[in-house]
Amino acid sequence: MPATPQPLPQVEITGYDWVPDFAKGFVRDLRPRWACEEIGMPYAMRLLNATAPRPESYFREQPWGQVPVLADGEIRMFESGAILLHLGEKDERLLPREPQARATAISWLFAAYNSVDPMTFELSNIEIFAAGEEWAELRRPSLIEFAGQRLDRLAAAIEGREWLAGRFSIADIAMASVLRNVEGGGLIEERPVLTAYLERAIARPAFKAALAAQLADFKPTPAAAA
Amino acid sequence: MPATPQPLPQVEITGYDWVPDFAKGFVRDLRPRWACEEIGMPYAMRLLNATAPRPESYFREQPWGQVPVLADGEIRMFESGAILLHLGEKDERLLPREPQARATAISWLFAAYNSVDPMTFELSNIEIFAAGEEWAELRRPSLIEFAGQRLDRLAAAIEGREWLAGRFSIADIAMASVLRNVEGGGLIEERPVLTAYLERAIARPAFKAALAAQLADFKPTPAAAA
Repeated sequence: MPATPQPLPQVEITGYDWVPDFAKGFVRDLRPRWACEEIGMPYAMRLLNATAPRPESYFREQPWGQVPVLADGEIRMFESGAILLHLGEKDERLLPREPQARATAISWLFAAYNSVDPMTFELSNIEIFAAGEEWAELRRPSLIEFAGQRLDRLAAAIEGREWLAGRFSIADIAMASVLRNVEGGGLIEERPVLTAYLERAIARPAFKAALAAQLADFKPTPAAAA
Repeated sequence: MPATPQPLPQVEITGYDWVPDFAKGFVRDLRPRWACEEIGMPYAMRLLNATAPRPESYFREQPWGQVPVLADGEIRMFESGAILLHLGEKDERLLPREPQARATAISWLFAAYNSVDPMTFELSNIEIFAAGEEWAELRRPSLIEFAGQRLDRLAAAIEGREWLAGRFSIADIAMASVLRNVEGGGLIEERPVLTAYLERAIARPAFKAALAAQLADFKPTPAAAA
């Protein structure tokens, strides 16, 4: 008896078929994967050859040539923050419907992307991409100080609540994903409120499933460049 | 005959009562002001004493102590990107209703805040706040190169269209505001597509009205700190 054909998922996310070890588990397609897992929504992956030059046509889908791009039926979106918002509109488990809770979740979604991520991006830059360069060494102290002050404020805002908008939401997917980028360097570890928040987030079965799925999609070695 | 009392605007935006000259016309309350001007929506300003320590209660409204905060009736929001989205939901002149155009506008809104602004923030840092510091001098060449590559991609995406999502939208308010932060240093001026895009944006009467209103709200000298 032939197997019942499964309907194709409506949602497709782009990712990479390989990344260097330091990036495994941190590529941004993890964020929409996590959102889909939270609501049990199946999704398909379109894996780009990470080592070949990006086809010029892909820049028309994603202006920087990065991942993820979301295809949802006929709709195309880019930027993981925009994609999280789009997925949030599908299910109140991702974005509350009560007006103030919704407003709070969206405020924190942007806060993760514009007030915390740029700092973690600069930190990753000095610790990984520009590691050992003179400017990175000289920049570190002032950046650590600025980041610490901002994370103190974040910790004060989270203290006494479980999630940023009361209930778990896309804001937490974004913020926890951003905080993971600087785990291990002391900035999170010195702040018990943030440590506990991040532990709550990554203990969620949906996060674990998304992480396992991303890791499983990477080939062991890069494909030969085209 | 007594004047007819004007109804109080439903929307209130926080701003500063004074900023140093380099920041005049660039404080982020300009963005929601611009959006309100585009749709002829009256708004009230709540001006914070820029030189006094921020009251601790304000951090419960805005976790970093910055502006703007939006009050819309009972709703409170922070992060100018979130506020632009909220205002966009009020009027299709700010956010198209056709699903793909809406998705494109929101994708570009996040692109402005997460893929272009962090770079302009780092540039402002080396040119203004850390001007003359050794790390800033050493960092400049690689940052200018990275910024230039990203702006080349932005120019390629804008080429042949007037606005990011076809029609003018909150994405253009965000992107033009971000690009203004690096005007004058060559990065915009060397790219005619971006120069023309930015000129189109700041030629809009709503931008001019918002800019004039922000400038008019600054006191000539800082208030005495409390």
